[in-house]
Amino acid sequence: MEQKKQIIDRFKNARSDAVQELNRLKKEGAKIAGYYCTYTPTEIILAAGAVPLRLCNSSEQYVQEGEVHLPRNLCAIVKSSFGEAVSGKSPYFEAADLVVGETTCDGKKKMYEYLRELKPTHIMQLPQKNTGHEESLLWINEMRRLKSSLEQEFEVDITVAKLKDAIKQKNSQRLAVKEFYENWRAHPGVLMSSEAYSILGNFDYRLDREKALEDLYAMIRHIKSGPPDADVKEYDNSPRILLTGCLLGEKMAGIINIIEKAGGNIVCVETCDWLKGSDGLVNEDMEPFSAIAEKYLQIPCPVMSPNHNRMELAARLIDDYQVDGVIDFVLRACLTYSVETVPLRRLVKDKKHTGYMSLETNLAHSESGQLNTRVSAFIEMLSI
Amino acid sequence: MEQKKQIIDRFKNARSDAVQELNRLKKEGAKIAGYYCTYTPTEIILAAGAVPLRLCNSSEQYVQEGEVHLPRNLCAIVKSSFGEAVSGKSPYFEAADLVVGETTCDGKKKMYEYLRELKPTHIMQLPQKNTGHEESLLWINEMRRLKSSLEQEFEVDITVAKLKDAIKQKNSQRLAVKEFYENWRAHPGVLMSSEAYSILGNFDYRLDREKALEDLYAMIRHIKSGPPDADVKEYDNSPRILLTGCLLGEKMAGIINIIEKAGGNIVCVETCDWLKGSDGLVNEDMEPFSAIAEKYLQIPCPVMSPNHNRMELAARLIDDYQVDGVIDFVLRACLTYSVETVPLRRLVKDKKHTGYMSLETNLAHSESGQLNTRVSAFIEMLSI
Repeated sequence: MEQKKQIIDRFKNARSDAVQELNRLKKEGAKIAGYYCTYTPTEIILAAGAVPLRLCNSSEQYVQEGEVHLPRNLCAIVKSSFGEAVSGKSPYFEAADLVVGETTCDGKKKMYEYLRELKPTHIMQLPQKNTGHEESLLWINEMRRLKSSLEQEFEVDITVAKLKDAIKQKNSQRLAVKEFYENWRAHPGVLMSSEAYSILGNFDYRLDREKALEDLYAMIRHIKSGPPDADVKEYDNSPRILLTGCLLGEKMAGIINIIEKAGGNIVCVETCDWLKGSDGLVNEDMEPFSAIAEKYLQIPCPVMSPNHNRMELAARLIDDYQVDGVIDFVLRACLTYSVETVPLRRLVKDKKHTGYMSLETNLAHSESGQLNTRVSAFIEMLSI
Repeated sequence: MEQKKQIIDRFKNARSDAVQELNRLKKEGAKIAGYYCTYTPTEIILAAGAVPLRLCNSSEQYVQEGEVHLPRNLCAIVKSSFGEAVSGKSPYFEAADLVVGETTCDGKKKMYEYLRELKPTHIMQLPQKNTGHEESLLWINEMRRLKSSLEQEFEVDITVAKLKDAIKQKNSQRLAVKEFYENWRAHPGVLMSSEAYSILGNFDYRLDREKALEDLYAMIRHIKSGPPDADVKEYDNSPRILLTGCLLGEKMAGIINIIEKAGGNIVCVETCDWLKGSDGLVNEDMEPFSAIAEKYLQIPCPVMSPNHNRMELAARLIDDYQVDGVIDFVLRACLTYSVETVPLRRLVKDKKHTGYMSLETNLAHSESGQLNTRVSAFIEMLSI
């Protein structure tokens, strides 16, 4: 097998490599549909023969650009995503031929109103509850509205056959991701959590998905048979940590390093770019739009009210991964995640008798010292 | 005619008088449905023979109670409303037999999840867009769901005849309010804006609506024929101010005083407790649920995306009321209003060439000095 480090590096470099790849694709006439949220049904974009490209940004530089145009009291992801768009300097945003957004949280839905001024933008109306007949019908209709928009914008026909192919393709990716983390969990001595995160947190940015899947399967083979890694071994008796909360983008890598250095053994990451997005498949035997709508509506995000799904998922993960402590990340001004610290704390502490810490972050570089101190104290408390 | 001051005092005292009135009503077996938002279709509550009671609170005392249970980074109205509910000390919340909420903003919709633990609570699913066939169907269905909930909770039948009566009753109130402010606008020398606000800002708390309407019409007669008031006259050449933004509850009275003392002549208040709620009627010739749904979905609130209605209303009010300056109140952490400062500023300054100031507030007593300074500077600038 190829060196583990080389494969991991290809994932680590995915975001910068995507810039070249986008140039190549654009030259070949490919259409790019930018999106921000895990609720975007990328199957429909794939069925349009277009490339789905995740646009949400988390860099401090673009937060400042965003604050020139938007109020400061929005979460860093919203501000930096808008800052990136409005700057005219982002190869990702500039590459997008169409932007797809959803009325998820208050900050995002209002920010999307200004994206319209920069790019052709299609907004999907997300229901605020994931049960109910009318909510389902509304969301299925949104699938059809997105189809029409893509067909019109990209001058293509989205057939049932293309949709079914795209569903199979995405499901096989979800299964590969699942197989990866099931194996990683079963062989904890081979891959550090920061390495596992480098792979999964960047998966969406490897636009050549076939090559990315090849690398993912190579890593699965390595995990199954590879020798224990000296660096990983030392975490064997460390507190087992579940990360949950807001999508933090590239900043997550730094936070995972802080936790690992403090002696925490991250056994599961329940965020949009890992488990929240890939848990569950689209039913391949149903009418495609209904099947896609059904899967996406069940994403356990706090924008749903009530959001029993996240509490049930957290309870299951705490048991499955034998978690000692939960670290819950909340982006400052992310009201839905912020309020859900209350029931999550109750679940984790009172029902599961597991450690819980909520960390508010604005993704600024300057706060890393404070995060370090709080995380170290939490891990130390769990180790006693 | 009865003294103007006595009538105004009955409105000013409405909130405290409501406590006694609630006791009396409860003893007589009346059912009380508490609600928080202008989106609540109170017609359906009235048709159930129940009393609609607005519960949203804005007092600092209850903000602190709310922060014991909820994260701090929510708007003061959400925190104080929850604080009031959880305190067990509020005669309003305690009087409610059922609470009705809607998934409006992120803060409120997540806060309502905890109200369920305190009272029977019915949550309506508000669409996030006020156009679209599916959005209308969803909202009409929510009217029917509320009807069923009220029928079950209060053991009553809500008939079409009762609904039509309630629609007529509410429409006549809206027309009275409209007649009041049309006359107040036409005779600016009779009633100060703080006096007008005392009347309309407390109208919802006068549970004996017939008596309240009687008083409102008495004031209309006074405005039409009454002698100019010396206190009011001095504002004749003052800058004409439109207030817009978040519902501030009882705190609005203090803010209006600050503006009046600074020499501003408030000619219109476009907030939930004044014009935003009472603009437009329910169509009396349509099927009742569709008619009610149609009216409420058009409320020009920033939770709708996009929210063209508010911009159109603001443009109309600036023209109709010959506005010199717009003061836009944003509750801290109210993300939707906060983002709408951007297009509103554009509209007011660039298109209407009118003064604009956005004021962020957390409704704390300690900020009144700062508000005073900023408002005075704005009025002074407009006066030059």
